[in-house]
Amino acid sequence: MDFKVKRTDKAVFSNYALNCVGTGRMHLALRHEYHKQLQKVQDEIGFKYIRGHGLFHDDVGIYQTYEEDGVQKVEYNFTYVDMIIDDYLSLGLKPFIELGFMPKALASGEQTVFYWEGNVTPPSDYEKWADLVIATVSHWIERYGEEEVLSWPMEVWNEPNLEVFWENADMDEYFKLYEVSARAVKKVNPKIRVGGPSICGVEDEHWLKSFLEFTSKNDVPLDFVTRHCYATEPADYIPHYAYQKLSSLSYIPDELRVSRDIIDSFPAYRGMEMHITEFNTSYSPRNPLHDTNLNAAYIAYLLSVMGDTCASYSYWTFGDVFEEQGIAFTPFSGCFGLLTNGSIPKPTYWTYEFFSKIGTDAVSRGKSHIITKEKSKINDDEIFHIVAWNPVDGEDKTCLKLNFSIEATDGEYYIFSRLVDEDVCNPLKSWIDMGSPPTLNKKQLSQLKDCATPAISTQRLSVEAGLLELDVKLNANAICHYEVVKVNPQVDRGFIAERVQGSR
Amino acid sequence: MDFKVKRTDKAVFSNYALNCVGTGRMHLALRHEYHKQLQKVQDEIGFKYIRGHGLFHDDVGIYQTYEEDGVQKVEYNFTYVDMIIDDYLSLGLKPFIELGFMPKALASGEQTVFYWEGNVTPPSDYEKWADLVIATVSHWIERYGEEEVLSWPMEVWNEPNLEVFWENADMDEYFKLYEVSARAVKKVNPKIRVGGPSICGVEDEHWLKSFLEFTSKNDVPLDFVTRHCYATEPADYIPHYAYQKLSSLSYIPDELRVSRDIIDSFPAYRGMEMHITEFNTSYSPRNPLHDTNLNAAYIAYLLSVMGDTCASYSYWTFGDVFEEQGIAFTPFSGCFGLLTNGSIPKPTYWTYEFFSKIGTDAVSRGKSHIITKEKSKINDDEIFHIVAWNPVDGEDKTCLKLNFSIEATDGEYYIFSRLVDEDVCNPLKSWIDMGSPPTLNKKQLSQLKDCATPAISTQRLSVEAGLLELDVKLNANAICHYEVVKVNPQVDRGFIAERVQGSR
Amino acid sequence: MDFKVKRTDKAVFSNYALNCVGTGRMHLALRHEYHKQLQKVQDEIGFKYIRGHGLFHDDVGIYQTYEEDGVQKVEYNFTYVDMIIDDYLSLGLKPFIELGFMPKALASGEQTVFYWEGNVTPPSDYEKWADLVIATVSHWIERYGEEEVLSWPMEVWNEPNLEVFWENADMDEYFKLYEVSARAVKKVNPKIRVGGPSICGVEDEHWLKSFLEFTSKNDVPLDFVTRHCYATEPADYIPHYAYQKLSSLSYIPDELRVSRDIIDSFPAYRGMEMHITEFNTSYSPRNPLHDTNLNAAYIAYLLSVMGDTCASYSYWTFGDVFEEQGIAFTPFSGCFGLLTNGSIPKPTYWTYEFFSKIGTDAVSRGKSHIITKEKSKINDDEIFHIVAWNPVDGEDKTCLKLNFSIEATDGEYYIFSRLVDEDVCNPLKSWIDMGSPPTLNKKQLSQLKDCATPAISTQRLSVEAGLLELDVKLNANAICHYEVVKVNPQVDRGFIAERVQGSR
Amino acid sequence: MDFKVKRTDKAVFSNYALNCVGTGRMHLALRHEYHKQLQKVQDEIGFKYIRGHGLFHDDVGIYQTYEEDGVQKVEYNFTYVDMIIDDYLSLGLKPFIELGFMPKALASGEQTVFYWEGNVTPPSDYEKWADLVIATVSHWIERYGEEEVLSWPMEVWNEPNLEVFWENADMDEYFKLYEVSARAVKKVNPKIRVGGPSICGVEDEHWLKSFLEFTSKNDVPLDFVTRHCYATEPADYIPHYAYQKLSSLSYIPDELRVSRDIIDSFPAYRGMEMHITEFNTSYSPRNPLHDTNLNAAYIAYLLSVMGDTCASYSYWTFGDVFEEQGIAFTPFSGCFGLLTNGSIPKPTYWTYEFFSKIGTDAVSRGKSHIITKEKSKINDDEIFHIVAWNPVDGEDKTCLKLNFSIEATDGEYYIFSRLVDEDVCNPLKSWIDMGSPPTLNKKQLSQLKDCATPAISTQRLSVEAGLLELDVKLNANAICHYEVVKVNPQVDRGFIAERVQGSR
Repeated sequence: MDFKVKRTDKAVFSNYALNCVGTGRMHLALRHEYHKQLQKVQDEIGFKYIRGHGLFHDDVGIYQTYEEDGVQKVEYNFTYVDMIIDDYLSLGLKPFIELGFMPKALASGEQTVFYWEGNVTPPSDYEKWADLVIATVSHWIERYGEEEVLSWPMEVWNEPNLEVFWENADMDEYFKLYEVSARAVKKVNPKIRVGGPSICGVEDEHWLKSFLEFTSKNDVPLDFVTRHCYATEPADYIPHYAYQKLSSLSYIPDELRVSRDIIDSFPAYRGMEMHITEFNTSYSPRNPLHDTNLNAAYIAYLLSVMGDTCASYSYWTFGDVFEEQGIAFTPFSGCFGLLTNGSIPKPTYWTYEFFSKIGTDAVSRGKSHIITKEKSKINDDEIFHIVAWNPVDGEDKTCLKLNFSIEATDGEYYIFSRLVDEDVCNPLKSWIDMGSPPTLNKKQLSQLKDCATPAISTQRLSVEAGLLELDVKLNANAICHYEVVKVNPQVDRGFIAERVQGSR
Repeated sequence: MDFKVKRTDKAVFSNYALNCVGTGRMHLALRHEYHKQLQKVQDEIGFKYIRGHGLFHDDVGIYQTYEEDGVQKVEYNFTYVDMIIDDYLSLGLKPFIELGFMPKALASGEQTVFYWEGNVTPPSDYEKWADLVIATVSHWIERYGEEEVLSWPMEVWNEPNLEVFWENADMDEYFKLYEVSARAVKKVNPKIRVGGPSICGVEDEHWLKSFLEFTSKNDVPLDFVTRHCYATEPADYIPHYAYQKLSSLSYIPDELRVSRDIIDSFPAYRGMEMHITEFNTSYSPRNPLHDTNLNAAYIAYLLSVMGDTCASYSYWTFGDVFEEQGIAFTPFSGCFGLLTNGSIPKPTYWTYEFFSKIGTDAVSRGKSHIITKEKSKINDDEIFHIVAWNPVDGEDKTCLKLNFSIEATDGEYYIFSRLVDEDVCNPLKSWIDMGSPPTLNKKQLSQLKDCATPAISTQRLSVEAGLLELDVKLNANAICHYEVVKVNPQVDRGFIAERVQGSR
Repeated sequence: MDFKVKRTDKAVFSNYALNCVGTGRMHLALRHEYHKQLQKVQDEIGFKYIRGHGLFHDDVGIYQTYEEDGVQKVEYNFTYVDMIIDDYLSLGLKPFIELGFMPKALASGEQTVFYWEGNVTPPSDYEKWADLVIATVSHWIERYGEEEVLSWPMEVWNEPNLEVFWENADMDEYFKLYEVSARAVKKVNPKIRVGGPSICGVEDEHWLKSFLEFTSKNDVPLDFVTRHCYATEPADYIPHYAYQKLSSLSYIPDELRVSRDIIDSFPAYRGMEMHITEFNTSYSPRNPLHDTNLNAAYIAYLLSVMGDTCASYSYWTFGDVFEEQGIAFTPFSGCFGLLTNGSIPKPTYWTYEFFSKIGTDAVSRGKSHIITKEKSKINDDEIFHIVAWNPVDGEDKTCLKLNFSIEATDGEYYIFSRLVDEDVCNPLKSWIDMGSPPTLNKKQLSQLKDCATPAISTQRLSVEAGLLELDVKLNANAICHYEVVKVNPQVDRGFIAERVQGSR
Repeated sequence: MDFKVKRTDKAVFSNYALNCVGTGRMHLALRHEYHKQLQKVQDEIGFKYIRGHGLFHDDVGIYQTYEEDGVQKVEYNFTYVDMIIDDYLSLGLKPFIELGFMPKALASGEQTVFYWEGNVTPPSDYEKWADLVIATVSHWIERYGEEEVLSWPMEVWNEPNLEVFWENADMDEYFKLYEVSARAVKKVNPKIRVGGPSICGVEDEHWLKSFLEFTSKNDVPLDFVTRHCYATEPADYIPHYAYQKLSSLSYIPDELRVSRDIIDSFPAYRGMEMHITEFNTSYSPRNPLHDTNLNAAYIAYLLSVMGDTCASYSYWTFGDVFEEQGIAFTPFSGCFGLLTNGSIPKPTYWTYEFFSKIGTDAVSRGKSHIITKEKSKINDDEIFHIVAWNPVDGEDKTCLKLNFSIEATDGEYYIFSRLVDEDVCNPLKSWIDMGSPPTLNKKQLSQLKDCATPAISTQRLSVEAGLLELDVKLNANAICHYEVVKVNPQVDRGFIAERVQGSR
């Protein structure tokens, strides 16, 4: 493939990759291992928001009852939720609030979801539910101040269109929950932004239309729309793991376009923000696909296009402290995280790290690449970034060759290249080589981290007639990042290269 | 080349690579940058002793004079030397003391050496010199306790056989200095170990014989012998740098053998420890050779043989905080350090890091390799280490192929390989690609550190008839480290490899 | 009171205060807040062992079942327990193992204890229980090596003499559990030490005698004896808290003496180690007593005497990450910890910190004090430590005056004093002054830490006729630590004191 | 004394205490100990600018000469100055540039100042001096960007009105230096701010008037005025130390008022910023006064008034890494720093720490106190800060009693008080008690840090008729900080105080 890039051809590209990331249930944010993983992610990638389930689950423990003088009373315990949000803020993250699931003492039924038994039934008393929402949001304003809390979007519940997450997937009951919750939030402060319906891709068109009709007709507050999307076909469950075929690259963008169009078809909601509050390749936390280079290359493509329709898309999830299907037996277990327990980056970690470096000022976009430029902070030079990817799900492992011609001012350029592919940065394979140890000792952990680092190289290129010519070759399931920087002449302190072994 | 390794063939190999390392003058140990470099070296390599010049130089400031009632009086200021040694001890290092140079107020002349102007003349008053030695060593015992100070060897002066380091290279005067110093040390505590003559390779045979005759005839205390060695031919000085040809690989081992034999020829000194208190390829701190992969491969060979004759060999120096020829203009300046200012590891850093991992229990040694084994700390498994190198000074850049056959118990083995060569880990070249910036900004520094990391790979090997067969290919000036670990069967939690892209 | 201390009068005193400390259930060791609290405790106090409940509880998740081909199978998941013990070891702690409680899938009944619902029924299948113990201990040896695991004592269950902790407090059933467990441990490695019966002070004499008869008659392995003790009278529960009167100071020592005598009455067990695997003033995690200065002074007395009969006494618990009665609403909640959530030291923290500094070489012991000496590490000087306490439970708040005369060599002494009492180091009161905020912001937390620091003072004393005279005055519920160090003459660099305001 | 404070009575007070701080010569910023001291100062106090001597001194090494083809050439070495400024910026500090002293190779004479021998003669070649200034400032813009460097004020030389700092204190020669330097700076970028004449209080009125006449008449760039001030009378030098009497409290404010009036008398310069680029009590780095509580209380007064006339006042110096009179023999040596080597805060450290907390919104100011208020960041509550001081230089040590009545809304208030006086926070005295050890071991250092901490207490006060009444009692040479915060009602989770020993 051949790409001629003119600087006037500004490419369409919105880089919202860092706007939000997913997490296992809120209570896990109290874990030491969770904190270490999130610290690394924030130091090296730097997301803005984080979203997960279980705010009102009993292990966070906000909703408490006790008996006094024979009467059942309600009180609120904010000890843990304060620890959790304090920690997020200290890491430069804000919460993207999900109002759910149901405290047992407020539930109308006993249906639960997940190993950790989140209750997914409607409240037994909607007034008490509203009180709970009001008390919690009011507490946050008291603790963090109005300005801070106004920047936290609040989403009502999770995937109510699935029976597993909402008793009977009862649409009317969800609309009731939504209305009560949204009005409760606005009662605390009408400027707080609230949204839904947090659906996944099952009957999603019907749900989305109905939801927007409901809110628009009833004047129910709605500040943004949320949905989820995953890109795999049905799973084979073989002993402990789920194996699935990836959907085609266009699957998710197409689905999102449909949602976008539905939203825009409501005059009141035209152009309203759509947040993808969960997405990934597979929806199973036991699919080894998540740990592969293929996953990294596939996600790279998605990150290059999802900003076309959405205001954020929250990768599900940042790390592997996660218990929906129980406790993982091994560091590589097909879980969702960008990194494993022990903080070994998976290949997809680098997809995010690469997209975190390139900004949003694109000069070229293609099916396999994005090129952006940024201005130097201290002089007038331009820096180019190229990210390219080559997802290959199958046996055909031919290389992808890309030839870039980028308009650039004449002179010398320094190119810093980082490559992640199945040969040079494939910690899953290295762990298997190691014998798949279920718990790593210090040395094994250290070695696997070494195996999870991109291969680096540098080179010099001359631009003579205004075009920087660069050839990139990608193996199957490779992603790469090239940074191209103009070299400024330096004081004369250079070595005589031919007298120094290996210096050129 | 082909190596059949039988476990019964225990190879001769003493790995004293970590016993000692060199440093720029003592005062530099007060620097923040110095501390950071040394911290990294100690965290990742872990030397035992450190030796440098300038203990009694005026910038450390121990020897002070003042006037009171018209009389000139002496007092001692241990503020800085205490800071320095406290810092060494906190980093797990002990000082290998060098008694020198001369405080200006105690000097008999004005000759100095280096940009920092170390006075290299004899004391104007040998009694005051002895007092200074006694006061300093006594202070150390008071501060650190006898047990600690008894483990610090004390060497008298530096390279007195060179005029530049000792006025007129006056041998008799040095012997006098040696005797006074050694007796002063022993007066504080006769168990403290003292040695010399700290000569370099100029008239070294004559000096060494004469010195040993002097000490043996006059019953002057001597607990160990010290000397230096460098391996380059005369320099071309072209603007700011020195270019030299490397001596042959056998140059240093041959020279040390001669010294060893001289020592052993004195019945009283047969088998006495010989410490190489300085060595390197070039003796110039402006020779870019130090920053190359060639240097790393050449030093690897030396580390495999120097333990045959010596008790320690102190690489001159651990880091690039160094001022003998003034302040370096650039991060790569041909200085001696294992790492640059900013803590970018040079290739030779990895030579030391590799030798720090392999222990001393060799099963095979050759001109281009060493193989050792260690026992697992928690079970009976053996771990093999292979370090190999291929120094090539010249245009002929053919690869070196090594074929190892190591006796091993049958089963599966995991191999973790690290490679440093001119293509994959050559930060000098990357810095030149970058335009040779004299001061690095944060991003440049971070990228050069990424460029200074070994390439990593892993593999699985089966041993079926008691022989582990391993082929290693080394480019010119490569060094590598292979760690070979038996894989123990793990619980059945494995993936189905053919269902997971890139997992094998 | 007046104490003349002769150096020849060596006092009886075994300082085992640091041998062990208690913790909330094992799973809590995965928490970030727990790690931070324990890190601080280990940095500043430094316990050797840690013991808590819940090793086999489902949240640690070791015992797992799954169905394959229609058959229910057992597998073990060591992910979390490895994280927990790795963390302990990294903090310099070893686990004092408690084998319990029962995984739900292996339980014979549904009775649970605590908010976190530990199952306290016997195993439905003793063979599977033995398999679980064997698999776990074997895994530890594989992971940490035999030498390490041999240093971990293993105790069977917790307080089986209480119905709440063991169904029906069924003694014969416990003896069965003990025997199966002890034999399982010994099957892995006969050198691992195992003990029980982990009883508290209810029918303890009967239980202890019966247990020792059972083990001795049936030749059941027993390497040490364990029990618990608490020192408060029945509780008034007023809304959320328990209020209790403290028992007399002699209550616990008397009770332990009885147990000691019972053990020693069995010839086979005479002198056998007795470990107090839990103790504190109150057994309620909602008694504000734990947060007071009274608690600190009372515990100080206990630490001065418990070593007379016991090999360890594990303060229940090191920190306030604890959920037996649910999640605390406030930082001061009467919980057991030496420090609060947020790591504010409670007064009792300082009791331990003081005992951690004094060693075990006593020269005087009284009802309100202990004096020890230690030898300087670098010279021959002696350092004296005085810890004194004045627990007062009631309205009479008269001061305690102590006059010490300690034999010491003549000269000048420097005294460094630290004082903790209700006026100078009472963070509970400061928190109440602050308005009892349920969650602290950063500034509040920082200020409360400042309020939780001992008052410091220094002085100089001269010893002229061989006696160091020292007067100590303690307010109600004070504890203090005095360190007394000989001043050695220093070089003449002193100020003229009368020319410097406030210098004497 | 009695202070009724009405909220409408806004007091005059400009708190510029944190705008700038002094430092030992630039080269010392390369030291590890320096970095640690400055890190602590910045973490806990947080200055904005830092100013010190020696930018162009040979140990920073910017100006370099070498011979090539028989010609002497100039080159610039920015290695060390980049390290220094990088470190400042990383600590949140900007440099307040002082252009001086003279590189030896550019000097016209040999006169030097200080132990470190700063050359204080005019340049031998003013054009080369201008080149040096231009090259250095241009390099900074290239490295840090224009925006950053525009915020760095540039002052020309140091105290040219003293012969010791400027050969012959030659005023005309200084004006020449000033003009050449100022024009050189402006040539790089006319927006960079430049100032002088950096005089101390010797013939300062004459110098200041002449300087302003010179610049105004000749249209020489001048963006701000700088001077120094110290407040002690002539010194007695007794052995190693200087003893001096403090000037009266009004000495410095009066002197500054005179300068202010001179500046304002020039129409072109009316209201121009005056920066006190050095001030302290004594100008001697060997006056123990700096280490006393008297110094802290005296400086507190100065900080309350200096903002009346000046835009910044740079305490000379932040720390004790300092070599003007050589290397200190002891941790307390009368040096200028806010903290000692080893980072023990001196009492004056707390003066700055207290002023760093109070903001600038004063409600009352008196000779011995300042009261400010700040608004809570998360609600509408007001927080009051009181800082009070009681400097007493002499034998009369009567207490100072202050009675504050502050208008406040009714309710409960929490008061957090910190006190520093000769009894509770006097590390100099504690060090003398210890025997004045010249180098501290770890325990001594830790104990002295404990001795250098304010005494803390808390209390509750009720405001009932709109007045908060507070009595403050200060011993001689005390300073205190009170923070007064409204208590908001909290959820009912309180203890029954009478059941909890010591809780009220």
